[in-house]
Amino acid sequence: MIRIGIIGYGNLGAGVEQAITKQTDMEVFGVFTRRETGSVYTQGSKVYHMKELANLKGQIDVLIHCGSSEFDLRAQTPQLAKDFNIVDSFDMHAIINEHRSRVDQVAKTNKTTAMVSVGWDPGIFSAHKTVMDAILPFGATQSFWGYGISQGHSNVASKVKGVKMARNYSVPNQDNIEAFKKHEKIDITLNHTKECYVVAEQGADLEQIREDILNIEHYFKGSVTKVIFITEKDMIENHSKWSQGGRVIRIATTSDGIKHTLDFEIKLDSNPEFTASNLVAYARATYNMHQRGEYGAFTALDVRPRDMSSKSYDQLIKEML
Amino acid sequence: MIRIGIIGYGNLGAGVEQAITKQTDMEVFGVFTRRETGSVYTQGSKVYHMKELANLKGQIDVLIHCGSSEFDLRAQTPQLAKDFNIVDSFDMHAIINEHRSRVDQVAKTNKTTAMVSVGWDPGIFSAHKTVMDAILPFGATQSFWGYGISQGHSNVASKVKGVKMARNYSVPNQDNIEAFKKHEKIDITLNHTKECYVVAEQGADLEQIREDILNIEHYFKGSVTKVIFITEKDMIENHSKWSQGGRVIRIATTSDGIKHTLDFEIKLDSNPEFTASNLVAYARATYNMHQRGEYGAFTALDVRPRDMSSKSYDQLIKEML
Repeated sequence: MIRIGIIGYGNLGAGVEQAITKQTDMEVFGVFTRRETGSVYTQGSKVYHMKELANLKGQIDVLIHCGSSEFDLRAQTPQLAKDFNIVDSFDMHAIINEHRSRVDQVAKTNKTTAMVSVGWDPGIFSAHKTVMDAILPFGATQSFWGYGISQGHSNVASKVKGVKMARNYSVPNQDNIEAFKKHEKIDITLNHTKECYVVAEQGADLEQIREDILNIEHYFKGSVTKVIFITEKDMIENHSKWSQGGRVIRIATTSDGIKHTLDFEIKLDSNPEFTASNLVAYARATYNMHQRGEYGAFTALDVRPRDMSSKSYDQLIKEML
Repeated sequence: MIRIGIIGYGNLGAGVEQAITKQTDMEVFGVFTRRETGSVYTQGSKVYHMKELANLKGQIDVLIHCGSSEFDLRAQTPQLAKDFNIVDSFDMHAIINEHRSRVDQVAKTNKTTAMVSVGWDPGIFSAHKTVMDAILPFGATQSFWGYGISQGHSNVASKVKGVKMARNYSVPNQDNIEAFKKHEKIDITLNHTKECYVVAEQGADLEQIREDILNIEHYFKGSVTKVIFITEKDMIENHSKWSQGGRVIRIATTSDGIKHTLDFEIKLDSNPEFTASNLVAYARATYNMHQRGEYGAFTALDVRPRDMSSKSYDQLIKEML
């Protein structure tokens, strides 16, 4: 059994714990948090305080770090790679390579294996885009996200004065998707709009809330957003699953007038549970690569499909080829 | 430059030659055929007789064998792997593993690298299915083929008495696709029907042709097929592109009532040109693996995405993650 340590127990950490119950060759060694130990956990895993991790070298095969890219992974993945194999979902696009290089140095020196920036985007979508681009170099790729909840946007909207709860959905532009698939020119600035569902505090100024949300820099300003006020009951009943969707489309030609269209679309009832399932399969690949002495920091682009699977190579050839 | 030798010059071989012109790090060393040399080739590549290949060891980086699985690859891939790195698209499903084992033995002994059974199915679809199955073990996968021309079925229909030309299309059942994507039960025997377009010889018995086609064992018997008679002009104008399509759908749950649907769909104006583009990217991976001393016979399940690409790792991280 591959022994997994889970760091952090938000939506993603709970999803990893859940996903491991679905795998036959893995078990949860424990959950590591900065909170008090002994809380109630969904699957009954053992809970440790973060500071206990240092004493557990050699007892955990792979750590899956479920913390925030900015506040946790950036500093902790390179530190932890000294003593452990580790998987993270670092997604600060502009500095992924810098992060990978730092972890790589530590991992190579200490003969550990790290897998950074995995999940579905970055992650399986990155691997998919690389393969499509390699096969069909004359073309263009577009990603669309939604229909589904964006956690970051929901969080900032929740903090606006007078807002009790908020959930923001990314809405892909179906006309742009259809046009792109037909190899027509599209205005990519119109690829997405937003729908922000808000429960207001009693007596709050709704017009002011709308204006405040639409003006949040880096998140809402400049984009087309509908702010929709709903009741708390409606929010809890209809917007508590973290649903999400996404697709990667590649269009390309191989000779004059010979067109190809490749469309990979995912629809998820729970973004955290699906992302967690990706991390778990990449943790298996990390374990397999470490067993073979492949030390350093890797990304989804370095992973052989068979290393993600619990099935034997013979069985995979029979089922998948 | 990676020097590629192309064996065979049917639709697929011509497609490989075409695809290499789209890659910046590869060149055609030559085309090898059993026919007389000196024929006119699309891209002006040098032409050799098959028997000259034996003298060219060390001058070709990777061979791409574009012959028939049954009549060429089965015997020739293991022989050629003695002296060359080689890629094939062996697709006799039941004996892929046996084929791979035979090639593997020769390749390991002679320190060559072989990539067998690549293309899109088997090939990128196999890799995709493996990853989806590893991430989401509680689920089901269905493949659909079409709307597009099946070359094997077209060939056997062409040989029926009174038939001048025939093109058979595989037609996926859209109702089944939609139902499966909604996680509903489907009857998989109804996943496909066929449309066979036929140009009859003058004065031929059309009813007899229809009956003869519908009764061809292993190809048409037992399936739902519409035989459609058309003029030669219509055939040439509207059915000479080898269009094809295919999709792999995985449905899965990660916890009670939490459903996920993953749909990878491809639409191709030319099946041979797309398949050839796959072979060429896998030839690059074969070359890279050989450079690192990874000897033996591999499949799509062993290939790291980055090895298929001509781009540097830094560039890939910037563009794809």
